Amino acid sequence: MPHITAIASMDKFKLTCPAPLDYEQIVIAHGGGGRLTQQLLGKLIHPLFSNSFLDQQHDSAVMPWQGGKLAFTTDSYVIKPLFFPGGDIGKLAVCGTLNDLAMSGARPLYLSCGLIMEEGLAITDLQRILQSMQQTAAAAGVQIVTGDCKVVDRGKGDGLYINTSGIGLIEHGLTLHPTSIRSGDAILVNSDVGRHGIAVMLEREGLNFQHHIVSDCTNLADMVMALLDAQIKVHCLRDATRGGLASILLEIAQTGGHHLEISEADIPIHPAVVSACEILGLDPLYSANEGCFVLFVPASEVEQTLAILKNHPAGRQVRQIGTVVTTEQTGQVNLKTNLGISRSLSLLSGEQLPRIC
Amino acid sequence: MPHITAIASMDKFKLTCPAPLDYEQIVIAHGGGGRLTQQLLGKLIHPLFSNSFLDQQHDSAVMPWQGGKLAFTTDSYVIKPLFFPGGDIGKLAVCGTLNDLAMSGARPLYLSCGLIMEEGLAITDLQRILQSMQQTAAAAGVQIVTGDCKVVDRGKGDGLYINTSGIGLIEHGLTLHPTSIRSGDAILVNSDVGRHGIAVMLEREGLNFQHHIVSDCTNLADMVMALLDAQIKVHCLRDATRGGLASILLEIAQTGGHHLEISEADIPIHPAVVSACEILGLDPLYSANEGCFVLFVPASEVEQTLAILKNHPAGRQVRQIGTVVTTEQTGQVNLKTNLGISRSLSLLSGEQLPRIC
Repeated sequence: MPHITAIASMDKFKLTCPAPLDYEQIVIAHGGGGRLTQQLLGKLIHPLFSNSFLDQQHDSAVMPWQGGKLAFTTDSYVIKPLFFPGGDIGKLAVCGTLNDLAMSGARPLYLSCGLIMEEGLAITDLQRILQSMQQTAAAAGVQIVTGDCKVVDRGKGDGLYINTSGIGLIEHGLTLHPTSIRSGDAILVNSDVGRHGIAVMLEREGLNFQHHIVSDCTNLADMVMALLDAQIKVHCLRDATRGGLASILLEIAQTGGHHLEISEADIPIHPAVVSACEILGLDPLYSANEGCFVLFVPASEVEQTLAILKNHPAGRQVRQIGTVVTTEQTGQVNLKTNLGISRSLSLLSGEQLPRIC
Repeated sequence: MPHITAIASMDKFKLTCPAPLDYEQIVIAHGGGGRLTQQLLGKLIHPLFSNSFLDQQHDSAVMPWQGGKLAFTTDSYVIKPLFFPGGDIGKLAVCGTLNDLAMSGARPLYLSCGLIMEEGLAITDLQRILQSMQQTAAAAGVQIVTGDCKVVDRGKGDGLYINTSGIGLIEHGLTLHPTSIRSGDAILVNSDVGRHGIAVMLEREGLNFQHHIVSDCTNLADMVMALLDAQIKVHCLRDATRGGLASILLEIAQTGGHHLEISEADIPIHPAVVSACEILGLDPLYSANEGCFVLFVPASEVEQTLAILKNHPAGRQVRQIGTVVTTEQTGQVNLKTNLGISRSLSLLSGEQLPRIC
C-alpha cells in the first residue's frame, strides 16, 4: 500500500454557495493571474476542492509516494498566436510544465499531452508544434508518455489548445514554499523580466519594433537541479509567468506573510522591452515571463547561487533584486524606484494582456 | 535516484515528414475514435513522440517508480452540452480519467484539473460542475491535488473544456494489455452498451423520446479493484468510450493480433437505445459509453468474474459476449447477428456523433 497521509473527506465538500464573486460570468481577467484569478481560486475553487495537497497552493502538488515524494502539476496553454518569436505553443507547453515541477524542487520525468484541436487546424502547423514539443522534452531528458486528442467544431476553439501535466521526483528534504522564507533572505532573479509578454503582444498585434524582442521561453529545471545538487538551502522558487514578476512576488508575500523590499535599479530589463513598454503604456514588472524565476535563499548562500546560475545560458544575468525584511506589513512588496521613492505594488485588477500562456 | 528504464533519445526524433495523412487540415472525425483518429495517432503523433511507455498505447502509461509501478493518464473533455441526463462535464472528466487508470489495473489516487473557460460562462454553471467533480472524486476516494484556470475570448471556446490527468498505483504483477490476451479467453461486458452517446445526442438535438435515456457515466475503478483484490487473472480491460464497443474491440484485435468472435444476442442493449438508434439510423455498437468496459479473462475465471461484478450497481448486467478464437484472421472482430449471419466489423471512417466526451 502507498504511504498516503490524507484522503479528501466528504465533510470538506461544501454544497453551500461560497462567497459571491464580483462577476456572475467568467471575464477575461479571471485568467490573467491578477486579483480576479485569485478571487476565483480563493472563493470558489480552493474551498470546494480543499485537501492537504491542493492547499499547498504551489506550482506543483507534492505527495508522499512509496516512501519518497512525488510532484504533480498541470497547465493548459491557450496562447495566441500559436507561433511567436522565441517559441511556439508546443515549446511553451513543455517548458511551462517542466518549470512548474522544478519550482517545487522536483526533477521532471514524465509529461502528458492533451490536444484540443479546432476543425481546420493545418496539419503542417500541428506537426511543427508537436516536433517542437518533442525536441524540448528530449533536450530536457523527459518523456511524453501519455496523450489525448480532441477535435472541436470550427469557431469553438482557436487553432490549438494544449494541456500538459507532469510528474517529477523530489530527491531532497527541503520544503520549497513561501512559508519557508525567512527574514533576511535574499531575493534573486535569473534573467531580465517582461520579454515573453511583450514579444507575444508585438507578434499578435503585428507591431514592428526596431529591436526584435524574443520570448524568454525556456526550461529552468537544469538550473534548479544544479542548485539542489550543490545543496544550496533554497527556501522558495517561483516562475514569474502570468502577471509577471510583481504578481508572483505579491502572491509569495501574501501566502507566506512576508514583507519584501525590491529595488528597481537591480531588476534587469532589456532596453527594447523598456522602450516597447513606454510606447504601449505597459509595466514590464507585470508582463509575463516563461524563462524567469525568483529565488529566495539565505544571505549566506547568495554568492554560491550566483556562481552556479551564471554557468547556465538562461542564468547569466542572475542578480539579487531585494531582501525579505522584518516589519508589521506582511503581504506587502515595496519597490524602491530609480527616483528613490518607495511604492507598494498591488495586484492587477484587470488584464494587462490576455492569453500569453 | 528513481528506477528509470528508458529515456527518450534524440535519435527517435524524426524531423522528416511522416507518412502523409488523408487530410491537410484537422477534421471533426480526427477526434471520433475511428479510422482518422487512428491515422493521426499512428502516422503523426506516435512516430514523433515514440518511447517505450507511450508505445504501450494503453489507456494509461505504466512506468517503474521507486521500486513499484505508477500509472499516468490524461484526457480532455469537450462534451456538448455541458449538462446531460446522467451527468455533466465535471462528473465525466473525473470518471473518465479514473476509468483510464483502472483499465491499466491501477488504483486511482490523485487527479489534476485544467479548466479552459470561455468568457461569458455563468459562474453558477461553473460552480455546479466543480461540485460535481468534487463529489465524484470524493466518492471514489481520490483527491484533486493540482489545477489550472485559463480564460479564452468569447467565440474561442464552448463554455468549458476540462482536462483531467491522473496518477494511480499498480499493486499487482499482471500486465493488462491486448498482447496478454490468449486464445480461448472469454470476452465480457459489465453493462448494456450505447447509452451515453444516445443520451447526449438526444439532449443536444432537443429530441424527446418516450423513454428517457440516461448516460451510463460512472466510476469503474471499484469493480476493477474488486477483481484484482480477488486475484482474478485479468488479461486485458478497456472502457468502450469514443467509437463504442465495436471500435475498441477492433483496436484490441489489431493491437494484440487476435480474432474476436462476439454474438449480437449476448450484447446487452437497453430497448430505448435500440428504438432511438433505429429511428436515428445509428448503430449502438459504435455509440459511446462512459460506464461500460470490456474484460478479457481466461475461461476458467468467468464464473468468479461474473459473481464479483454482479455485486456492483454498474456490474449487474455483466455478461459474456464472445470468445477469442484461433484463426489466421488476426485483427478481426466477427459479429454473429441475431439472424445467424456472421459479419466482420470495421472502423468508422467518419464520425457517428462528435464531442460526446
